[in-house]
Formats: sequence, structure tokens, C-alpha cells
Amino acid sequence: MPLDLSEIDAAIHAPARLAIMALLASGDELDFVRLRERLGLTDGNLASHLRRLEEAGYVECTKGFAGRRPRTAYRILPRGRQAFERHVASLERILRAAPGEPPH
Amino acid sequence: MPLDLSEIDAAIHAPARLAIMALLASGDELDFVRLRERLGLTDGNLASHLRRLEEAGYVECTKGFAGRRPRTAYRILPRGRQAFERHVASLERILRAAPGEPPH
Repeated sequence: MPLDLSEIDAAIHAPARLAIMALLASGDELDFVRLRERLGLTDGNLASHLRRLEEAGYVECTKGFAGRRPRTAYRILPRGRQAFERHVASLERILRAAPGEPPH
Repeated sequence: MPLDLSEIDAAIHAPARLAIMALLASGDELDFVRLRERLGLTDGNLASHLRRLEEAGYVECTKGFAGRRPRTAYRILPRGRQAFERHVASLERILRAAPGEPPH
């Protein structure tokens, strides 16, 4: 059996998005500023990766206030958690791949 | 400290190249046909991924014969093994990333 490379999820595979998903997979809601600190990305870059994950239905954002300052918080959705777990399992299968398995 | 996303190696990150590197990291020399069987890629697609890894100095190819049939075999170079190990360590750091770490 060939390795199934198609199980790698393109919406998650980019390093920044993999890191966002890993951070949110803890279940914590994280705000934009916290994510930016943890990832060392520019505002524009982080916003565009988050938008891609929202469009995939993997994360959800809520806008509110922390005191008088606007705050945008992100959390993982059940569908995102499933996709993340599937993606990581697929990565692990690839990394464990042994050349010696019979081709069929 | 932000996560260091720059340690993800673009030459290795594509799923097909990650899989090629994982297969070759066993130390076995694998021929083109064997790699194609394990990865389920077309000839052109596999050849282009292998070329990218050769250009990075990560794998080396030798051409010879198996009986009377031409055979092209690939093996990982020390520099490729180092890069692969660094890449996997970086992936693992990202996947273990916890949101709660202090920002500085």
C-alpha cells in the first residue's frame, strides 16, 4: 500500500497554521495578541492564516472587549479538532514509513 | 519566546518530500520504482520532488543497471539526515506548543 499523502490537510500543513492549530487544540480560547506573541508573526500574516482556518470551518473568532480595548479571540471548532488529529496521525504515519514494506 | 517557525525546512515540508526523506532516513538505498510504489506518485511528480531534494544537497542519485535494466537509486546524504532530524524536531516542538507559556 502506498503512503496516503492526500491525508495531509493543506489548510493545516503550512507551519504557521499547524502552530495555530496546535495552540488552539489545548482547548483554550486565545486572543489575537497572544497568538501573535507565541508565533512571532506580523499582524497581516497572522490574520491571513487565521482567515484561512476560519474559511475551512476549523476555528471560530469572537469579538468583544477586554475592559475598553477591543479583543478578538479564537477557539478551535470540533471539525477543526478532528481535522488536526487526522493531520497529525497522517504526519506520524509518514514519519514512521519504512521502505521495507511489501508494495502490495 | 515565540515558536521558531523558520526551522521548518521548505525543501522537506511538502508531504511527498517529507515521505521521501522518511523512507531514505532508514539508510537504505531505494530505487525510483520502489519510491514510486511506496508514495503512489506519478513519474513526473516524483522526479521533480527528488530533483528538489538533490538540489538542496539532501539526497544523491546513482545510475546503474539491475541486470540489463537501467536503475536509478537514491540515498540520503549526511547533510540531508541532519536537515531531516532538525525538521522533525521542529515539527515536534510545534505540535507540543502550549498556549500558556509566558510570552517572554
